[in-house]
Amino acid sequence: MKKTIGILGGMGPLATADLFRKIVLMTEAGCDNDHIRIYIDDNSQIPDRTAAILSGGTDPVPQMSDALRHLEACGASCIIMPCNTAHYFLPQLQAQTQIPFISMLAETAKACAMRFPGKTACVLATRGTLASGLYERALEAEHVSCILPDEAQRDTLMYAIYDCVKGGKPLETVRRPMEQLLADLTAQGADYFILGCTELPIVAQELNLTGQFIDPTSELARAAITFCGYSVK
Amino acid sequence: MKKTIGILGGMGPLATADLFRKIVLMTEAGCDNDHIRIYIDDNSQIPDRTAAILSGGTDPVPQMSDALRHLEACGASCIIMPCNTAHYFLPQLQAQTQIPFISMLAETAKACAMRFPGKTACVLATRGTLASGLYERALEAEHVSCILPDEAQRDTLMYAIYDCVKGGKPLETVRRPMEQLLADLTAQGADYFILGCTELPIVAQELNLTGQFIDPTSELARAAITFCGYSVK
Repeated sequence: MKKTIGILGGMGPLATADLFRKIVLMTEAGCDNDHIRIYIDDNSQIPDRTAAILSGGTDPVPQMSDALRHLEACGASCIIMPCNTAHYFLPQLQAQTQIPFISMLAETAKACAMRFPGKTACVLATRGTLASGLYERALEAEHVSCILPDEAQRDTLMYAIYDCVKGGKPLETVRRPMEQLLADLTAQGADYFILGCTELPIVAQELNLTGQFIDPTSELARAAITFCGYSVK
Repeated sequence: MKKTIGILGGMGPLATADLFRKIVLMTEAGCDNDHIRIYIDDNSQIPDRTAAILSGGTDPVPQMSDALRHLEACGASCIIMPCNTAHYFLPQLQAQTQIPFISMLAETAKACAMRFPGKTACVLATRGTLASGLYERALEAEHVSCILPDEAQRDTLMYAIYDCVKGGKPLETVRRPMEQLLADLTAQGADYFILGCTELPIVAQELNLTGQFIDPTSELARAAITFCGYSVK
């Protein structure tokens, strides 16, 4: 029986489409039938994760569990979530199912250790992810040192993520602030950047930003393809 | 209760990702929660549709039905298929479920009649779709006249679809044949082109082909968004 992937998505919808596309493009395949079967619940009704972590917003776990039930009913062999912040709730979700989750943060930390040994990462993410310490712990487990953006830089990231990619404002409005942010953090010691919110690889690609980046969405795609026993291009 | 979309996908996987992305980008939304909930079974195990229609290949209906069961279990309000050729089997699938299918071909024909009144379409598609007469019937119902590619031109289209987009060969290898095909068919009376295989909008976009195109994937996205009661951007 071939293994399949379940994507617990909707966080956000464009990031979910990005993960799906990356899995397809990264799978070694010569025809449709060589690809992995993928189930997606793009559940746009999951409440905001950052709001839940930081300011007592609606608990997203019930809606995430609802999507998990659908992916279980389809028979997914593993579950992946294209939302870094959502990984705050991963232990609660894993406790609800026998299907293994593949952690985007753990896979990203492994990729950092392998590709940039001895270098300093900078984590670009939502306020929720940064406040939770999720990435710092995942990186520490792989002995990867990191620095974090300051308050003003977090404002820039939240604008790029929420107003532009999720909200539809033109990405060009955030080009100069993003370029400044990358330059300032490099001056502060960052050797490379973790695009630690699934909206950020979209920002980096659309704006064609230059720098050394780790894309957690790609790392998660790679890990899921490998888990299913397929080859990565 | 908000309406949701079920995508019976995998035909092929990249076309499924393209449809998903187009729905997300075309939905009027200011945040994640403004989007439509979308269920996808990207069932890469569905046998080739053209082979089944033309040369006695494996019947794809059982695998399509399997995906349909999953989308029913999720509670999809409508079903859409990002594969023109697969619409040959739509009546058999519709007979199996109460959930309405939205036909990509019917929506495309309506768009042709509205956007290019009195003009002649040219249907670019797989040999399976062309041999089935599916598009000719859909266009006839909207009083849209059309011409079809000849045998050599069908070879070019099959190469672009199967070898390049589905098979991973570089799209550049088909640039000149595609440009020649568009020029020749224009000389033969085509006023605009229906990109009547879901791999072809990907070809046209990646190669930045010039011409008057109707993209059935976008028309299907538009129809599904409207069916669900959301606004199209």
